[in-house]
Amino acid sequence: MLSRKNGINYYQNAKDDEKVKNVYAGIDIGGTTVKMALIDEEGTIFDKWEIPTDKRESGKHILRDIAASLHQATGRLHNVHHILGAGVGAPGYIDVENGVIVEAVNLGWKNVAVSAELGEALGVPVFADNDANLAAAGEKWKGAGGDADNLLAVTLGTGVGGGIIAGGEILHGYAGLAGEIGHITVLKEGGAPCNCGKQGCLETVSSATGIARMAKEALNQFDGESELKNIQTANGTIEAKDVFAEAAKGDELASSIVRESMDHLGFTLANLCNSLNPQVVVIGGGVSKAGEQLLEAMRGSFTRFSIPKIAQETEIKIATLGNDAGVIGAAWLAKQKLITPEASR
Amino acid sequence: MLSRKNGINYYQNAKDDEKVKNVYAGIDIGGTTVKMALIDEEGTIFDKWEIPTDKRESGKHILRDIAASLHQATGRLHNVHHILGAGVGAPGYIDVENGVIVEAVNLGWKNVAVSAELGEALGVPVFADNDANLAAAGEKWKGAGGDADNLLAVTLGTGVGGGIIAGGEILHGYAGLAGEIGHITVLKEGGAPCNCGKQGCLETVSSATGIARMAKEALNQFDGESELKNIQTANGTIEAKDVFAEAAKGDELASSIVRESMDHLGFTLANLCNSLNPQVVVIGGGVSKAGEQLLEAMRGSFTRFSIPKIAQETEIKIATLGNDAGVIGAAWLAKQKLITPEASR
Repeated sequence: MLSRKNGINYYQNAKDDEKVKNVYAGIDIGGTTVKMALIDEEGTIFDKWEIPTDKRESGKHILRDIAASLHQATGRLHNVHHILGAGVGAPGYIDVENGVIVEAVNLGWKNVAVSAELGEALGVPVFADNDANLAAAGEKWKGAGGDADNLLAVTLGTGVGGGIIAGGEILHGYAGLAGEIGHITVLKEGGAPCNCGKQGCLETVSSATGIARMAKEALNQFDGESELKNIQTANGTIEAKDVFAEAAKGDELASSIVRESMDHLGFTLANLCNSLNPQVVVIGGGVSKAGEQLLEAMRGSFTRFSIPKIAQETEIKIATLGNDAGVIGAAWLAKQKLITPEASR
Repeated sequence: MLSRKNGINYYQNAKDDEKVKNVYAGIDIGGTTVKMALIDEEGTIFDKWEIPTDKRESGKHILRDIAASLHQATGRLHNVHHILGAGVGAPGYIDVENGVIVEAVNLGWKNVAVSAELGEALGVPVFADNDANLAAAGEKWKGAGGDADNLLAVTLGTGVGGGIIAGGEILHGYAGLAGEIGHITVLKEGGAPCNCGKQGCLETVSSATGIARMAKEALNQFDGESELKNIQTANGTIEAKDVFAEAAKGDELASSIVRESMDHLGFTLANLCNSLNPQVVVIGGGVSKAGEQLLEAMRGSFTRFSIPKIAQETEIKIATLGNDAGVIGAAWLAKQKLITPEASR
């Protein structure tokens, strides 16, 4: 099926003058959809699509669906793409070395050998890592990270996730928990309880959920005038984006919540930078849509709590890839593992 | 001068039946003395000694003195040791890739090309890194670290230093500042000023200097009975070891200072472990002589502020190598670079 000429792979059934493009498959498995893309060696997405995540029967159909969809996609592309390998991101605890998803509660998975099973179905090497780590790698490679070898990514969404790239590689730590920066304690006393089992985590004050909770609590104890209160009355609830929007318009209550939340974020990022010295910090997730408003609100606290050289030199940026970060990071993983085998240690 | 037989290096002037042992030179340059050792591939010290650090004329004699001393030592050992390479630790900012000490204020050095100059004098490859990083590597290899690939070392001395080993390698960060955990902010408000330019750093409350300062400040405002006060009157000052000693005997004032200092240490280490997930944390430096008393005082805070899985699984240990950590870590560096060339990226 495949021939080689001048170092380039050609499919026999491709037109003679048609160059076959080498690509990596980037796969980002979420609880609702599986995002997939074919990505070339420069990180350009050639094709992307998604399929629903079939969680029935402990998620046993997911890998088969992914393989079928990829086969269909490469067919649709008239075989002009040659898949060199695939990277897979999944939520949960991953045995990176063996490509096994030890546990992914959202998918119903326990001990799923992604690299072995999908590798056999696709006929190419498959590598797996945590989805937050791969989103960090995506932003590093083609997003706001500017291909920095030392980068810290934080995702402010429903929760707070993160990934650390150091010396060009994803940090995993002893049990794969490295990068779980959402559970850094920021409130030593009186913090809200967190899903992780402790309290006062960054996630309780800087996630979308945490910001909304703080707004609701503040409104419960607030007798004055605030547009936030009107929004709560009209919508029956308050979301983080409302808090940022009203703060931008000058609402004092909303501003105080943004200040408090971003003070904790700045404190946490400063201390991480003091100890890890990344070149770039990339802030993503839904809350990061506040953009410059968010950066401005956290910059004072970041500067105040950073070693002066760190405060001066660390670039803090808003993520640029959105939902594509995961598939691009997954392709980066496959490329990195296939090009530098020692990186797979 | 050198012959090879059965894969073993022999010196011609060694006795025929005398096996020449391969060793690494570990060199730890401090402001007062240079510690040196010959260390075999298993990390055993065969010989160690020190020479004064000659800081005259911007430290221009230091490298020559080191080379002369090493030549003398290998002569003293009747040429039965064959030096494969050397590692050098120095205080300050190091360009690790090129082996250049960019600045070491304590030595009077600016842009000293240690790898090139000492490499030429010794005729073997020479590698350099920050002394705190190499102390961490020493404890990892032969000390309390049990050769863990993911390890955090903290040194509680005059200041607070640290080193991070992740995935088996020393983390440097973008500008070589990774591991500077002494400047993590622990007091957001009202902290004491730190040498780094900000305030409320871990160093201000958990170094020997910081603990002594806290004791003196507490005594200034204290009217009751405390053995600490008697010690201050008798000695004219208070040292950290007095605080730990009196706390161990039940002195309430001393105990409250130990509690406060170790609460901050536990908080900091918990947050570092939450984000880096090391297998082992090794605590060294003069303050660590308090041993089990220190561990006990910080454990509550560490557990309270750690993700439950981290609290359960992370081993916290007192360093075991003392002043040898630096030379052993320096030998580890040389061994690692020579055995795995890709690690020198």
